[in-house]
Amino acid sequence: MARTACALGRVYQLLEPGPVVLVTTAAGARRNVMTLSWHLMMEFEPPTVGFVLSEDSFSFGLLMKSRECVINIPTRAQARAVVVCGNRSGRDGDKFSAAGLTPVGARQVGAPLIEQCYASLECRVTDVRGVRRYNFFVVEVVRAWVDRAVRAPRTLHHRGWGRFMVAGPEIRLRSRMR
Amino acid sequence: MARTACALGRVYQLLEPGPVVLVTTAAGARRNVMTLSWHLMMEFEPPTVGFVLSEDSFSFGLLMKSRECVINIPTRAQARAVVVCGNRSGRDGDKFSAAGLTPVGARQVGAPLIEQCYASLECRVTDVRGVRRYNFFVVEVVRAWVDRAVRAPRTLHHRGWGRFMVAGPEIRLRSRMR
Repeated sequence: MARTACALGRVYQLLEPGPVVLVTTAAGARRNVMTLSWHLMMEFEPPTVGFVLSEDSFSFGLLMKSRECVINIPTRAQARAVVVCGNRSGRDGDKFSAAGLTPVGARQVGAPLIEQCYASLECRVTDVRGVRRYNFFVVEVVRAWVDRAVRAPRTLHHRGWGRFMVAGPEIRLRSRMR
Repeated sequence: MARTACALGRVYQLLEPGPVVLVTTAAGARRNVMTLSWHLMMEFEPPTVGFVLSEDSFSFGLLMKSRECVINIPTRAQARAVVVCGNRSGRDGDKFSAAGLTPVGARQVGAPLIEQCYASLECRVTDVRGVRRYNFFVVEVVRAWVDRAVRAPRTLHHRGWGRFMVAGPEIRLRSRMR
């Protein structure tokens, strides 16, 4: 994958459409990857993201310990991997190999990028005050990568129980909305 | 529009894919509608939603005062209205008429449903602790409406500056992920 740096001020354009993401975490000798759809943008710059990550998940412990993660954005070609990562627990074995995903070293965090994803956002946890009540984490994107060859990513958008809407055509309207 | 009640336990299936929404608010004699993309699901039942709504907006004051809103989900046919509601302020005049949107009385909240939207979620604000730092509101959906004739809604997903991804085809995979 031809990964190049993405300006932090443009990160919201990747997440605002609401794609399913694959969140990687690592702490000590353990690492994991999980599927997640409950995320939102909270600030343009520095790009700030909020997400809900279940306290029952193996990733929860790794995230709390390391306070770092990578948000990777898969597309249609990774649909099977998305389901594998959503249905298994990292407690039961390495999900990267089970899902056919290749972890790649990140620049600023310990959690890995995923080679097969067209975009990856290295994040640091900045606020855990929503964790006790909602399992809600706030993170800041400190470095972002994107494959510029992918102009219209066929991202996946979960409608429940294995039904995914695949990103369709793009329309452009005159607008001052950033 | 043939609006019928939607089970609260299925509300997440409407928002999890990440569509642009039109949020309506009302307080006293004033009402407003604004475009918003920064939202996430936080709990299945009762359906709990978080969103960021700018403190500079006219809607912010109405929401803080009434502690109620309706999250309406537009589709491709409402693209122009989405842009109108995102680019104007309710301080400068009634946006419903400017955008060609018809407000309809809701059942449990003072804010109106939007006739042209295929789904509408009546909400009460339950947590404002994230407002000071992030303009982040947590709301509970108390009643939900959907047009069941719309099987594959062509929702809009904002990529920035008037670029919208329109919902494409649906794929189904075997999955235990709710």
